[in-house]
Amino acid sequence: MTADASSFSFALAGVEGEARAGTLQTPHGEVPTPAFMPVGTYGTVRGLHPAEVKRAGARVMLGNTYHLHLRPGEEVVRALGGLHAFSHWDRPMLTDSGGFQVFSLEGLRTIEEEGVAFQSHIDGSYRTITPERAVEIQWDLGADIAMQFDHVVPGGSDHALAREGMERSLRWLGRCKTRHLELQSAGEAPPRFPASPPSQALWPIVQGGTHPDLRRASLDGILERGPWTGIAIGGLSVGEPKPVMHAVLEQLAPVLPREVPRYLMGVGFPQDLLAGIARGVDLFDCVAPTRNGRHGSAWISTGRVNLRSTLHRLSKEPLDAECDCETCGTFSRGYLRHLFVAGEILGLRLVSIHNVRFLVRLAEQARAHVLEGTFDGWSREWLRRYQLKGES
Amino acid sequence: MTADASSFSFALAGVEGEARAGTLQTPHGEVPTPAFMPVGTYGTVRGLHPAEVKRAGARVMLGNTYHLHLRPGEEVVRALGGLHAFSHWDRPMLTDSGGFQVFSLEGLRTIEEEGVAFQSHIDGSYRTITPERAVEIQWDLGADIAMQFDHVVPGGSDHALAREGMERSLRWLGRCKTRHLELQSAGEAPPRFPASPPSQALWPIVQGGTHPDLRRASLDGILERGPWTGIAIGGLSVGEPKPVMHAVLEQLAPVLPREVPRYLMGVGFPQDLLAGIARGVDLFDCVAPTRNGRHGSAWISTGRVNLRSTLHRLSKEPLDAECDCETCGTFSRGYLRHLFVAGEILGLRLVSIHNVRFLVRLAEQARAHVLEGTFDGWSREWLRRYQLKGES
Repeated sequence: MTADASSFSFALAGVEGEARAGTLQTPHGEVPTPAFMPVGTYGTVRGLHPAEVKRAGARVMLGNTYHLHLRPGEEVVRALGGLHAFSHWDRPMLTDSGGFQVFSLEGLRTIEEEGVAFQSHIDGSYRTITPERAVEIQWDLGADIAMQFDHVVPGGSDHALAREGMERSLRWLGRCKTRHLELQSAGEAPPRFPASPPSQALWPIVQGGTHPDLRRASLDGILERGPWTGIAIGGLSVGEPKPVMHAVLEQLAPVLPREVPRYLMGVGFPQDLLAGIARGVDLFDCVAPTRNGRHGSAWISTGRVNLRSTLHRLSKEPLDAECDCETCGTFSRGYLRHLFVAGEILGLRLVSIHNVRFLVRLAEQARAHVLEGTFDGWSREWLRRYQLKGES
Repeated sequence: MTADASSFSFALAGVEGEARAGTLQTPHGEVPTPAFMPVGTYGTVRGLHPAEVKRAGARVMLGNTYHLHLRPGEEVVRALGGLHAFSHWDRPMLTDSGGFQVFSLEGLRTIEEEGVAFQSHIDGSYRTITPERAVEIQWDLGADIAMQFDHVVPGGSDHALAREGMERSLRWLGRCKTRHLELQSAGEAPPRFPASPPSQALWPIVQGGTHPDLRRASLDGILERGPWTGIAIGGLSVGEPKPVMHAVLEQLAPVLPREVPRYLMGVGFPQDLLAGIARGVDLFDCVAPTRNGRHGSAWISTGRVNLRSTLHRLSKEPLDAECDCETCGTFSRGYLRHLFVAGEILGLRLVSIHNVRFLVRLAEQARAHVLEGTFDGWSREWLRRYQLKGES
């Protein structure tokens, strides 16, 4: 089997329409869903201490295989005890496969059936990632959940290109699974911290662009190659119009297996989180909380706030009076603005903490409302208030 | 009187040779001395959260009047509750007078008896700081301890120039004191957080360059204008040879009043801290812990460590096995190196935490040894070990 069934499980606790509330069990503990996963590109959620990420309520962190492969290299992470010990994160960890990043390197890479040859954006060195290598790297990193290596095509790709990527992703899924099984049966556990069952799940990724027949074929191919403890949906939020993304999710919701979590990759603006949850998604990730945070842009319950604005110069108010994060409980908007204007590092850190907590809490609130059967009404009202000012 | 004697006091608890251990009382609590004060230039110790500065054991923080005057402006800090509330620091705060920064602006400033006219390095605007303005700005900032505005001359200045600066500093001290008394008797308290007695101390600064007769004249002039709750020594560590700095401290130690704390401005490398304590200094400040931290340079008990070095690539060891800081208890050198190589913000933060704790603890250890009468031997052994590798 592809994953140790004793270490991974998913239990649905409530369903309202297509929206779901559940609990994912992993070797590093459980993740109540829906859940937002902050992105720790290089083994750190940018600017934040792992203790801050934990206090923000995050139950699972994402690591980027492509970036960690280039710096410091999976052999270094493994020698230092694996990604959990390396970055001092004792909760579940998920790694992407590097596919998305490798395919973003326009002009720097060559795609063949064997894999993708590319030039490192760090030192110009030539590298190749194959499905087998992607699985091996993630094994060395030691995440709880590894993702298949997939062929990502640009958003808006025509049927022929989307089909090519989808079919190759299925063939690569087979090779990923074979290599993952070999690593597991070799008995050499991925590095783990703290000590935990030596198991790692491998999750497939549904591709097919915006073409319903291809999405369906992708899912069918994935299910033939199962069983799986989770299934991801890739190739969305890459420039296509929002209604198109929603249509794909609406098509997949009733046909995805109910009993495994569904992870919508790279999605995580507040509206998208709620739209995804309404369409049956359980897991999300996005760099936006920290990327926006670094620029002084914060999400609050009534929309978006630009902390560099002179509006906040004399404001004693917290960033978000309804927020329970460390930043809002401690500092004024006036101080936060000052930190951004003066270029002080503490500013981006404090706003990143808030943004991460904001999305984690939004998922927590959605979960509570699904369990109470009030998600639909709450979500509509939440979005109305959030979008009232016309910003997003 | 220049300071509210009921809010400020200093008690010597032990003396060994010239080295002293004492306790400074302020409206925001006590400061056991010797003590190292981290510098919060813009109302934040660069990169650190005030809670981290506190957990590093710092008992008093320094703010830079010149920088805070330009950004965000003392009127903003005052409107937001004063520097304590603004930056969420509930322990004692000391502000410098801006003299040092203004006099560093070669070519951008004009010195007259009235004060110093200069161009802001931020927006090119023309400003003037007089002794009265320096006191008013610090009153608005609301520090526990304000410093006099002084005329700082370059290190190595000849007798004539050093005398000019010293004599002007004395005249300016008189004006600072007059304005400070006016502000106090106006009854309008400086902003304070949390609520505390509405008092602020004003401390004078001994100048006179490297010339013993001028240093002595400076101190005599200061004492004539007293009483004071603390006295600073300025114009050192500005490029003069170490033995020259030591000679000035040795000259002053026996003639400075025993019953007030002595603050050596801008000094804070480990060796200088111990050299200063051995010569009767009670308080120190320096930006080196965070400036070095940002570049991956750390002090440890056996010397200096460059965390960018490839030496640490696979190291599971803590930065300093003898250190009790949050960084050393949590992360490996290999991870810290990775953060610096990858340009991750968390790296500079973790090393800054260590460096601040290192200096704060060095002062704490010195205090304990003075109280036990073992400072001299301990200090010699500490320096021998620290300098063994020839780095410093």
